[in-house]
Order: sequence, then structure tokens, then C-alpha cells
Amino acid sequence: MSPTVIKAVPMTAESFAPFGFVLETSENSMAAMNEARFERFHDLAKIDVDSGNDGRVAIGIAVAKVPVNMPHEFDLIERHPLGSQAFIPLSPFSFTVVVAPAGESVATADLRAFTTNGHQGINYHRGVWHMPLIATETGQKFLIVDRAPGIDNVQERVLEHTVTLSL
Amino acid sequence: MSPTVIKAVPMTAESFAPFGFVLETSENSMAAMNEARFERFHDLAKIDVDSGNDGRVAIGIAVAKVPVNMPHEFDLIERHPLGSQAFIPLSPFSFTVVVAPAGESVATADLRAFTTNGHQGINYHRGVWHMPLIATETGQKFLIVDRAPGIDNVQERVLEHTVTLSL
Repeated sequence: MSPTVIKAVPMTAESFAPFGFVLETSENSMAAMNEARFERFHDLAKIDVDSGNDGRVAIGIAVAKVPVNMPHEFDLIERHPLGSQAFIPLSPFSFTVVVAPAGESVATADLRAFTTNGHQGINYHRGVWHMPLIATETGQKFLIVDRAPGIDNVQERVLEHTVTLSL
Repeated sequence: MSPTVIKAVPMTAESFAPFGFVLETSENSMAAMNEARFERFHDLAKIDVDSGNDGRVAIGIAVAKVPVNMPHEFDLIERHPLGSQAFIPLSPFSFTVVVAPAGESVATADLRAFTTNGHQGINYHRGVWHMPLIATETGQKFLIVDRAPGIDNVQERVLEHTVTLSL
């Protein structure tokens, strides 16, 4: 079988909608806050966390230790059946995600890749398949909003063959 | 009555603990993530949102339009009886908060001020009194994690007299 190459396209709220929400200031309704000292962009994503077994929303931070170069080869994909998961850069930088629709199975042909514009975060819908988070520079930080505890909330699949992600 | 001046002190997890959590990477336990490509700092704050009347956790972004200069005078303080509220800078910058313990009343003498180190976010405990958010430069962005809908979730008090916040 010939190798699969997936080329990332620019992320937009519309194109990413089947997989999650885009957290950004440009696409949503705006309201004034604090006597108009701020513009507030409200309620940008659906946080969807199963409350069973003491499930709750948690905030964490991930710091990149081993960046990857593009093109990037991978064959593992994962999903979180018990909750949505948000990644928001804590400084302006672009990152790339690979996703496939929620469902019991996932095939290489279902994969799509998106690159953010440097001022976007994302919130995966519950159950959406995604490549594990990657970063392109050491020290890049992401805020994470997902479910705690993490137990029973990760399912992994190995794809039929290795996929190459390119920008 | 002579004017009240509150001088901000550096924020630490310990000193801020009565008022909220500090969201930072240095003070909490760390775990590897994604085959050690990342260090993950888990579960940094208690997200405490009343689920009555369709209450849920929401993510928003606030962008500063009218920055303030220090020293800053204010006489209004607020609290959110239905949920915690997190503010996390979306780029490295310092900000200053003024807080007072949760409770029915609040007095000028109860106020304390903290300045972050540029790499910290905060999560106010539910009900903690605080000065409305301020920023010192136009365009500074904060991620907000709090309760939606916002209705019935803001209470304001006017202090006995104007307070001057200084760095």
C-alpha cells in the first residue's frame, strides 16, 4: 500500500465544526464587560464532561519537551469517551491537529488535518478521534480543559499503516 | 477619613490560597504525557460551578480595550455566588488583582492585592470578592473559565470609600 500523506489546511470554525469548537475572538458574538474596559467573547465551546464516577472539569497545563518536525509520521490515534478536551496556547503560536469523526472505528481515509493561525485554541468534541498533541518548539505551553479523573477516558487505536502529516 | 492605599505583593500559591488557585507550572505535581513529549501539570484548580438552572462550565476570552494606569482608583467590588472564575493570560504578561474573603459583607480593611509574575493565571474560589478585572495594555487577552449562564451570578458592592491600588 502506498503511504498516506495528509496535508493540513487552515483551521476555521466552519471546517472544524464536525470535530470541535475553535476558541478565538473573531468568529463569535462580542459583549462589553467591566464598564467597557474589555470586550468579552462568551461561551466559545461546549464543555461536555461526563459527571459519573466523580467526573468534573479540570484545568491543566502541558509544556512541550520533545518537539516534532514536519513532516511528522504517526500511526496512533486516540479518543476520550467521557469528555471534550480543549487545548489553548498560552502564547501566540500555531499548531496542527489530525482528527477523524467520533465512532467505534477509525480508518486512515477518515483523517483530516488542520493548522491554527496562531491565535486559535480548540475544543475536541467528546469522542472525536485525534492524533496525540504535538508541538513544534520546546517550551510551548497549552492550557488544557478536560475531564478529571482521566481513568477510563482514553482509547487508542493503531492505524492500518503509518501516516505522514505535512504542512 | 484618609484614603486607603493597597500595595500589591507578588502572587504565590500559598499567599493566594484563601482566595483561589494559582494556575502555573512550577508549584504542582508533574506527569509525562504523550510518550514523554510533554510534561503535564494536572488539575491545577478546583472548578466549582453550580449546576442548578442549567449551570455549566463555559470558556470565553476577554480582550482589553481600555487599559488602566497604576496607581488605579476603584470603589466597586464584585463576587460570583454560583461559581469559581478563572482568568489565564493568553500571552505572558503580569496582572494585578484585589480580593477579599467570601462572605456576605466586605470592608476596605479586608482587601489584599496580588501581582502575578507574568506566567500565572488565577481561579477565584466561588464567592470571593474581587475588583473587576483590569489590564495595563490594550489588546491583552485573558481566557476565562466560569459559569454560564451568567444570570444571577454577579453581586456588586460599593466600598465605604475609594481605594487606591499601587504596585
